[in-house]
Amino acid sequence: MTEAPAEFSLIARHFRPLAGPGALELLDDAAVLTPPPGRELVLAADAMVAGVHFLAEDPPDLVGRKLLRVNLSDLAAMGAAPLGYLLTVSVPRATEDAWFAAFAAGLAHDQAEFGLSLLGGDTTSTPGPISLSLTIVGHVAPGRAVRRAGAKPGDGIWVTGTIGDGALGLRAIRGEVADPDGHLAGRYRLPRPRNTLAIGGIASAAIDVSDGLIQDLGHLCRAGHLGAEIDSALVPLSTPARAANDLPACLTGGDDYELLMAVPPDRAGDLVAAAQMAAVPVTRIGQFMAGPADVHVIGLTLPAGRAGWSHF
Amino acid sequence: MTEAPAEFSLIARHFRPLAGPGALELLDDAAVLTPPPGRELVLAADAMVAGVHFLAEDPPDLVGRKLLRVNLSDLAAMGAAPLGYLLTVSVPRATEDAWFAAFAAGLAHDQAEFGLSLLGGDTTSTPGPISLSLTIVGHVAPGRAVRRAGAKPGDGIWVTGTIGDGALGLRAIRGEVADPDGHLAGRYRLPRPRNTLAIGGIASAAIDVSDGLIQDLGHLCRAGHLGAEIDSALVPLSTPARAANDLPACLTGGDDYELLMAVPPDRAGDLVAAAQMAAVPVTRIGQFMAGPADVHVIGLTLPAGRAGWSHF
Repeated sequence: MTEAPAEFSLIARHFRPLAGPGALELLDDAAVLTPPPGRELVLAADAMVAGVHFLAEDPPDLVGRKLLRVNLSDLAAMGAAPLGYLLTVSVPRATEDAWFAAFAAGLAHDQAEFGLSLLGGDTTSTPGPISLSLTIVGHVAPGRAVRRAGAKPGDGIWVTGTIGDGALGLRAIRGEVADPDGHLAGRYRLPRPRNTLAIGGIASAAIDVSDGLIQDLGHLCRAGHLGAEIDSALVPLSTPARAANDLPACLTGGDDYELLMAVPPDRAGDLVAAAQMAAVPVTRIGQFMAGPADVHVIGLTLPAGRAGWSHF
Repeated sequence: MTEAPAEFSLIARHFRPLAGPGALELLDDAAVLTPPPGRELVLAADAMVAGVHFLAEDPPDLVGRKLLRVNLSDLAAMGAAPLGYLLTVSVPRATEDAWFAAFAAGLAHDQAEFGLSLLGGDTTSTPGPISLSLTIVGHVAPGRAVRRAGAKPGDGIWVTGTIGDGALGLRAIRGEVADPDGHLAGRYRLPRPRNTLAIGGIASAAIDVSDGLIQDLGHLCRAGHLGAEIDSALVPLSTPARAANDLPACLTGGDDYELLMAVPPDRAGDLVAAAQMAAVPVTRIGQFMAGPADVHVIGLTLPAGRAGWSHF
C-alpha cells in the first residue's frame, strides 16, 4: 500500500543526487533555505520548450546544462552569485530513463562548475513536447544588484566574448552556415554564462544578450531613458562568425548569453582588470548618449522591423 | 529599431500589474528580494499541463488560481507564510489576448486573497499544450518549518476539510458522478489551500493531500519510519461525496489540497483552537504507531496496487 509509483523512484534516482543544502533531499513539500545573512536574494525563471528553445534531438545533458546556464546568465547580468534552483520537468510518458540520466548528469556537471545545487521541483507527464522551467536563486550585497536602468550619457557600451555565435549556431546545425570545427553549433547548444565576471560596482547597467545585441541594447536605452551608438566594426566576432559574413544576423540574433554592460569611463579600467582576472574577453563597442531611446549602429543598415527576435 | 515585440507588450499588459515589491516591474533580468529579517525561506515549484492537470477548456482565471493554489498548499503544509512567486507560461502561438487577461485576473484575485505578488518569470510559445510552472517563495521562523518527517507513535492523524472531492470533481466534470450543485467540480477546478491555519508548532509532521489520502499518509509514514491506522468511517466526506458512495475513490483520489497532519495528543487542543480561529474544519481520523511504514485502513479493502495516483 505504500509502494512508491514511477514519479517518486524517478526523482530518487536522478534528481535526489543533485539536491543540496535546504532541499531536504527532495522528500518534503518545499525546500527550506537560510538566506545568506545580510544579502539580498536575486530570483529569475526561464522556460525552455523542445522545438522552440532547443532541438528535440539535442543531447539531454546539453539541454539540462543550457537550461541552467540561461538562468545563470540572468544572475551574471545582475551581478549576483548563484545559490540554488528549482526545476519543473514535463516530458512525454514514453521518455526513457536514459534521457533523465543524461539530463541529470548535465545538471550535475554544471552545478559543480558554477557552485549551486537543486532545491526542489516537480516532474509531470505531458502529451506535448518536453517543457522545462527553472527558477534560479542567487544573492547580492544589498543595493548592489546591477539593473537594466542606470546607464548615463557617456558610459561606454561593453560586451563580453563574441556576438552572434548563438544565432549562427542554430543556422549551422540546420546546415545553412559553414561551421568547420563546430564552434557555432557549440555556442548555440551550450551557452557560456559569464558568472566569473563580477560586475557589481563596476557596471552602471547590464543585461545578458538573449534576444539579440541591438534589441537588448534597446532594453538598456528604454530603461535608462537614453540613446546608444555602437560601431559595428568594433563588435567582436568569432572567426567562423566573421566567415559567415552576415553582420545583421550577428547583431540581431539571440542566444548569445554574453553580458552587455554600461560602464562609466572612470570604471573602464576596473572592468578590464576584473575581466583579466576572470579570463573573460571584454570589448568596448560604443557609448550611451542623451536623447531618445534609440540604438544607432554605425556601418549597418538593418531591414525595417529586423531589430531582434523573441522566443515567443 | 527599439519597438518592443509581442512578448514584451504581453508582459506589460497582463503581468506587470501583478508585480509586487522586488519584481522591479518585471523590467529586469531578475527580481531582487530582501528576505524578511531572521526568517527562513520556503520554496516549492509545481508544473501544470493542459490535458494532464487541468482541462484545456477550463476557464483561464481558474487555471491561474489553481496553479497558484497548489503551490500555496505546499507552503501551508510546511507552516510557511506566502511572500511571492515566479511564473513561466508556455502557450500555443494562437492563444488569444483574452486568455492572458483572464489568466492574469485569476492570479490578481488570489494574490489579494492570499497576500503575495508576482516576482518574475518568462513567457514563451509552445507547439504543444499550455504548460505552466510556478515557483512559490514563503517564509517561516527558523527551525519551525513543518516537515513530512516528525510524526511519533501515538500522534493523532488529522485532516482539514473533506477528502475525495477533488478526484470525484474530475469525474463529475466528465459526467460520471452526480454533482447537483457543482460542489465537486468546483473543488477540482479551484482547490482551497489551508494557508489561514498556521500549523507551525502544533503539527509534528504534515503534507498536503495531492496524490491521495492513503498515498500521502504513506509519505508521512516512510519519512517518519512508523505506521499509521485510520478509520475510514471517520474520514470527513462532503454530502455529494457521500452520495457518490465510492470510498476507495475518496481515499485514493488526488487533488484535495487539504492538510494531513500528525498532531501529538497534548497539542490536539491547540489545533482545534487554531482551526476554529481560522474557520477551518479539522477531523481526527486515526493515529500513528510504531512499526513498518504501512497504512492500515479500518473498514476498507483496496484492490491491489490502488493506493493512489501520480501526475506522472
